[in-house]
Amino acid sequence: MKTRVVLHTVGQILLIEAGLFILPVIVGLVYHEQDSVRAFLITAVITAAAGGLLRLVKPGKSSIYAREGFAITGLSWIMLSFFGCLPFVISRQIPGFIDAFFETVSGFTTTGSSILTDIEALDNAMLFWRSFTHWIGGMGILVFSMIIVPLGGKRSMYILRAEAPGPSSAKLVPKMRDTAVILYGIYFAMSALLLALLLAGGMPLFDCLINVFGTAGTGGFSNHGASIGYYDSEYFEVVIGIFMLLFGVNFNLYYLIFLRRVKAAFRSEELHWYLGIVAFAVITIAVNINSLYGSLHQAVRHSFFTVSSIITTTGFGTMDFDQWPEYSRTIIVLLMLIGACAGSTGGGLKVSRVMLLMRTVRRSMRRMIHSRSVESIRFEGRIVEEETLNTCLIYLAVYFLVTAVSVVVVSLNNLPFETNVTGVIACLNNIGPGLGIVGPAGNFSTFSGLSKLVLSFDMLAGRLELFPVLFLFSLRTWKR
Amino acid sequence: MKTRVVLHTVGQILLIEAGLFILPVIVGLVYHEQDSVRAFLITAVITAAAGGLLRLVKPGKSSIYAREGFAITGLSWIMLSFFGCLPFVISRQIPGFIDAFFETVSGFTTTGSSILTDIEALDNAMLFWRSFTHWIGGMGILVFSMIIVPLGGKRSMYILRAEAPGPSSAKLVPKMRDTAVILYGIYFAMSALLLALLLAGGMPLFDCLINVFGTAGTGGFSNHGASIGYYDSEYFEVVIGIFMLLFGVNFNLYYLIFLRRVKAAFRSEELHWYLGIVAFAVITIAVNINSLYGSLHQAVRHSFFTVSSIITTTGFGTMDFDQWPEYSRTIIVLLMLIGACAGSTGGGLKVSRVMLLMRTVRRSMRRMIHSRSVESIRFEGRIVEEETLNTCLIYLAVYFLVTAVSVVVVSLNNLPFETNVTGVIACLNNIGPGLGIVGPAGNFSTFSGLSKLVLSFDMLAGRLELFPVLFLFSLRTWKR
Repeated sequence: MKTRVVLHTVGQILLIEAGLFILPVIVGLVYHEQDSVRAFLITAVITAAAGGLLRLVKPGKSSIYAREGFAITGLSWIMLSFFGCLPFVISRQIPGFIDAFFETVSGFTTTGSSILTDIEALDNAMLFWRSFTHWIGGMGILVFSMIIVPLGGKRSMYILRAEAPGPSSAKLVPKMRDTAVILYGIYFAMSALLLALLLAGGMPLFDCLINVFGTAGTGGFSNHGASIGYYDSEYFEVVIGIFMLLFGVNFNLYYLIFLRRVKAAFRSEELHWYLGIVAFAVITIAVNINSLYGSLHQAVRHSFFTVSSIITTTGFGTMDFDQWPEYSRTIIVLLMLIGACAGSTGGGLKVSRVMLLMRTVRRSMRRMIHSRSVESIRFEGRIVEEETLNTCLIYLAVYFLVTAVSVVVVSLNNLPFETNVTGVIACLNNIGPGLGIVGPAGNFSTFSGLSKLVLSFDMLAGRLELFPVLFLFSLRTWKR
Repeated sequence: MKTRVVLHTVGQILLIEAGLFILPVIVGLVYHEQDSVRAFLITAVITAAAGGLLRLVKPGKSSIYAREGFAITGLSWIMLSFFGCLPFVISRQIPGFIDAFFETVSGFTTTGSSILTDIEALDNAMLFWRSFTHWIGGMGILVFSMIIVPLGGKRSMYILRAEAPGPSSAKLVPKMRDTAVILYGIYFAMSALLLALLLAGGMPLFDCLINVFGTAGTGGFSNHGASIGYYDSEYFEVVIGIFMLLFGVNFNLYYLIFLRRVKAAFRSEELHWYLGIVAFAVITIAVNINSLYGSLHQAVRHSFFTVSSIITTTGFGTMDFDQWPEYSRTIIVLLMLIGACAGSTGGGLKVSRVMLLMRTVRRSMRRMIHSRSVESIRFEGRIVEEETLNTCLIYLAVYFLVTAVSVVVVSLNNLPFETNVTGVIACLNNIGPGLGIVGPAGNFSTFSGLSKLVLSFDMLAGRLELFPVLFLFSLRTWKR
């Protein structure tokens, strides 16, 4: 492990974070929240100092490999969360360090799980920062910082490989920096469009920003306890519902549209499956909850928003789906596991990975019968390399393992089985709410400190596609 | 698909079943249960007729392949259960056909899940047959019938591959028939020893037989609602607890001991892991439930019996573990997933498969870092073929998929999440009880007919290592 280049890069990223604290400071000044302004300024100084010190470490000239990429990715997110949670602690708006850390990890990983029991009690500056972390996290803090941090092509490649959500987004265009700029431009433009539509609907500017951050990052933090249900507006629900789905689409497709290859974009198999799953879930859940809401119109309204929120792993809420019939609740948990498209801001297993897994299973069943059959698996019109398929299978095994171990640790709180299992699923897949005590009307405050740390680990592991975080916590990494 | 050889073989197996009905007839005569005797005699005639007709189908001379092996295995178990459930229906002791079918599938698959609300109300002949199906199912009905049904070496090989529980038990000795005879001898001798020990403790002969069948087959049907808790005897609990563990050990090891290669048997990695997992679970659960039972002695007593019963997928009960603290309940669910050793009468993922999965994950993490490392995975001192590892990974994916789909169908009953998830896990892993409504004090009677059929499918799929049953239900199998 070339520790020096890792520390140097993390230092640069912390300096960027220190600069970003200027935004909540401005919000604090607007709303005359002096304590919060002070907390952000103190944190900015501390973060800048830490970042500056780390940046003094000479990186050396040697190129970096996968292990350094993994270490940079994992460490950056942990350090961003560590320093990002200090304003909450210093201002005593979230006095406990572990609570503040959990909340900030939940922000940067675009999870949206919260330990807050009274969201509205927080200063606006704090609420702004809390949601802004979603927006930063959304496109991957390192895709973002890649534009600013001058790294060589090879180096960025490894960081992106560790970072890119999903199995298939590795190579968009040869020049990594250009890709990042274009993707970030699309992200910015879509956010601006959403902002305009929400403003046009009469939503206050502050709320608009919060909801844009939560939607674009597929995070789900709200500044209201009732989340999007607070507005009780079908317009906002439809707009946000559609934009959540849009941010859950593989950004490669937007890139193709940007290149005027519209037909190619709409031919995406993953897109078809994604929309098919959404349609199936919206319809069957609407039928299942129809009797609760009197009219099919209302049932579809709530079903659409919830399905969109869950499959994109956003976690905004309008209705407490924890109260819905068991079929709907089960489909919601399944959507949590599937997650959004690869290469989007969403989490979960990813639609493409689920597709590859199902095709691999189908092929191997055929092979068991005709033992000499040699058949390649195709995806999006291309033959998928066997190593990619193998990695998908391994991913599932690791995912299974991490879930099992986490549920055991969380079970020590002696809360119900449903809460433990769905709480871990909600964190590992970066959703936000689960069922039971951690349902849409609940929160994660009941868990012990140990559980919150494990769930923070799960959020990071899920967001960074498991391997970088596991790598960071493996003893072997730090030997010699 | 060579349908004729499949039907011919299934016919032979049904003739054997028809002969086996003589045993419950004898029990019925002893206890003067005329209705039951009548029901078994009628069923015997029907089964013999069906078997005889199928046997008239000329198998042809061509050798059979994997697909025929899969079809024979899957169909045999379904047909055995179909005809095996008729006595319950004819005698109206279990009037509903689906209920009776579920109960019989549960028997032959050595699951032990029951739809009965009052077990003691059944005739002794019925209780005997219900438990005897465990014993038949235990070593695999086809390993059993292989001794009697004259099949060529190659043919038996494929059936055994579909049948043998776990990834590594395929090739014991070159001559399949000899192996089957030896394994069956061991099974018989161990059953006899257990019978002697239970008789020595003063258990009535009928109860002894029921409990031997349930223990040897790792099934778990009891003739008392309170299961082994009925006797409230530490002696019986220790004896049955130890024998459940013994029947959960890979029978290859007994074969090695039989060959006087005792050291080799005790060197088994899988055995060490199995015992290690048992020890870990017994100790931590005992600590967790200590306060419930006053003394550590009692806590260890109940923890040991429950852990032994669950990891071996037997499902006998002494205490209602559904009432235990959440940590214990969670560990119990994990034990259900892990299951017993490969090549035993137990179900679940199997200890060796879990070990291979963990080693594969560890290796692939190393490979991600050192992309050129070529490292083989060793198990029991030998290098494991890459195809075996791949099959393990695929197995996990299929397992995941079957669980998810089953939970969705079962959720239509609108019962709690915990009940649905653990109910499916209990059936797919051939345990017996789950948590909640299907906990040790409950049963599966509340589920709809559709759910009972899906759960029957799960029991069969789990018992036959997924692929033969999926194969049988795949449309493609029956085309052309």
